[in-house]
Amino acid sequence: MSATARRRTTDHRTRVGRERSARTETKILAAALRVFAERGPDAPKIDEFVAAAGISRGTFYNHFDSVGALLTATSEWTTGELLRTIEVALDGIEGPVLRFGLGLRLFFAKAQSDHVWSLFVARVWKMGSLELPVRDLEEGLQLGLFRAPSPDAMRDLLFGAVREALLRIGGGHASRQYGDEMSALCLQALGVDSRRIATVMRHALPAVVPAEAVER
Amino acid sequence: MSATARRRTTDHRTRVGRERSARTETKILAAALRVFAERGPDAPKIDEFVAAAGISRGTFYNHFDSVGALLTATSEWTTGELLRTIEVALDGIEGPVLRFGLGLRLFFAKAQSDHVWSLFVARVWKMGSLELPVRDLEEGLQLGLFRAPSPDAMRDLLFGAVREALLRIGGGHASRQYGDEMSALCLQALGVDSRRIATVMRHALPAVVPAEAVER
Repeated sequence: MSATARRRTTDHRTRVGRERSARTETKILAAALRVFAERGPDAPKIDEFVAAAGISRGTFYNHFDSVGALLTATSEWTTGELLRTIEVALDGIEGPVLRFGLGLRLFFAKAQSDHVWSLFVARVWKMGSLELPVRDLEEGLQLGLFRAPSPDAMRDLLFGAVREALLRIGGGHASRQYGDEMSALCLQALGVDSRRIATVMRHALPAVVPAEAVER
Repeated sequence: MSATARRRTTDHRTRVGRERSARTETKILAAALRVFAERGPDAPKIDEFVAAAGISRGTFYNHFDSVGALLTATSEWTTGELLRTIEVALDGIEGPVLRFGLGLRLFFAKAQSDHVWSLFVARVWKMGSLELPVRDLEEGLQLGLFRAPSPDAMRDLLFGAVREALLRIGGGHASRQYGDEMSALCLQALGVDSRRIATVMRHALPAVVPAEAVER
């Protein structure tokens, strides 16, 4: 075998190995999402994830050191994926009220299409990851389109409302219109007048390009 | 001893016994409030309550069958006490916007004065007990003073906001004005205009008559 052919074979093996490793990691994350959604962030033990993913303990530890590390990775995996999807869908849409309102509608539409995801996010999500809406919120406040007595109160009200909404949706207790109703109410909470809210609610929901197919 | 004297002695013993039993129960509830606030509703075992209250296991079981029963009782004890206090304080105050807004301000003032209570309520409270504000909310909606796309969305937004607020206050991360800021933002979320909100915020906070002294 020539040096080039040998190198190619090695590259091929490395690539195949990396792909297999990535697939295993996705499998663990998808299983972890289900386990965390059912049992909350603190209760589950490593063996539950091992059983849910159908892997060995050794394989688990090749990927994650602890339940805490797995929780962080699962949280970033699921919310990061959605936030990128929403960002792409909102590309070209102007104005913080319209962008924030449509972003909320897309967020709740995702929740209504995937109750496991919805419960998971409700139970473990920290607002820290929500970078995109924060940008629109700040712009809206600067332009006087949003009003709030303080950033802390605004953050807590929105975060609390979204978390309760995800619990209701994930528990299967939401009507079909619920996501849009909650989006409209969040805009009202930000001091947006009813005419502008109606415009956001009438606007066609931007098309969402699904993130790369993942094994769930 | 005459029959009357005997009866009096028995009555006295019964009363003393009942009073002692009530004091023990209050002691267990106060200890449970601290334990639940620190550890959440699901994690604690009976021995932790026994140790925190400084009683025997037998005494515990004389009062409560299970951690679940204790949680329900603690929840009713703490929120029921406050809701009665607020109801009394609001006596004679007219109009759902003013009543609801002042009720919120009093509620958060209590939270800011007692972080253990605040964390406990944030972690275990079910909205079900919140009877008084519901009455004001319904009246406000009927009069067109409050607006919401649906009762579910309204309930979830308010409950979520209050819970996040209690977590922030209980964690010691709230400014002195935070309770009033969150009260104002909740009114804005209900569609109340800024002039009316300002009136509620300027209104003197009604005097609160402390509930009967309890051992904490």
